[in-house]
Amino acid sequence: MALDDAALDVLFRDARTKWEFTDEAVSDEQLQALYELLKLGPTSANCSPGRFVFIRTPEGKEKLKPALSAGNIDKTMAAPVTVIVAQDPLFYQHLPKLFPPADAKAWFSGNPDLAEETAFRNSTLQGAYLIMAARALGGLIAGRCPGSIKTKWTGRFLARAAGSRTS
Amino acid sequence: MALDDAALDVLFRDARTKWEFTDEAVSDEQLQALYELLKLGPTSANCSPGRFVFIRTPEGKEKLKPALSAGNIDKTMAAPVTVIVAQDPLFYQHLPKLFPPADAKAWFSGNPDLAEETAFRNSTLQGAYLIMAARALGGLIAGRCPGSIKTKWTGRFLARAAGSRTS
Repeated sequence: MALDDAALDVLFRDARTKWEFTDEAVSDEQLQALYELLKLGPTSANCSPGRFVFIRTPEGKEKLKPALSAGNIDKTMAAPVTVIVAQDPLFYQHLPKLFPPADAKAWFSGNPDLAEETAFRNSTLQGAYLIMAARALGGLIAGRCPGSIKTKWTGRFLARAAGSRTS
Repeated sequence: MALDDAALDVLFRDARTKWEFTDEAVSDEQLQALYELLKLGPTSANCSPGRFVFIRTPEGKEKLKPALSAGNIDKTMAAPVTVIVAQDPLFYQHLPKLFPPADAKAWFSGNPDLAEETAFRNSTLQGAYLIMAARALGGLIAGRCPGSIKTKWTGRFLARAAGSRTS
């Protein structure tokens, strides 16, 4: 089944990066619904290395602030949610569960360059699925993740989201 | 506007990586429609480094064959289209046109590491937009691009597409 023109407009043609947000809160349920869609997007050998840190509190935003470039501070502080799209460098430890048909864990154990490239590519694909899922459910804008953002995973980029489309 | 459940099923819930294809040809018009959607997906500073090589001929497939892992040969030969998702390492030369508000070209000139990371991240996002656009228009599967595939750009991964959803 192909989607109709109205759906293609929502996903691609009429979607725009947002610079301003309403102060409408985004609920746990909305974030869970977003994750339940994005996690289904395809990755190589279902490796799913992406990890998503959802930041909504003033305290969390303050921790982000020093890592942001000047042009990104105001819009990140204003966004109801900012997502750090990160990758788990040890993603391949989960492959026996995620990809039972082969010993895919062995492809990456002891090959850190292949693991890093695979994690970067596939977590980025998952970041794009997050963007498309958010468009399907509401509004979202994306921006680059400064290297100085520290999580237990490797931060790759930031996305800012609102619960509904805003100007 | 949020999409309805049927559209979310097409994009995420019911979509599956395909291993078999019909022999239905994919037309220039279908590929153009796919590109016209994917090109609209967001990239940082609209840098759009992705380049897409669509391979449909037996001769083109034969050139790909030596670069494929054993498990990918049959399905790639059977697919009506295989797309090399690549990146233009000199993408930033186009930024004066693609992102007029700032001198974004200067961010990358003389900074090859930043240019490479930006090209990899954003061309991969565009690869995911290709996958989602193809799902919106028909069936598609994706797989890793072997490093030995040579184009004028840097190959990142392969996607195989059919004009309509197949088993």
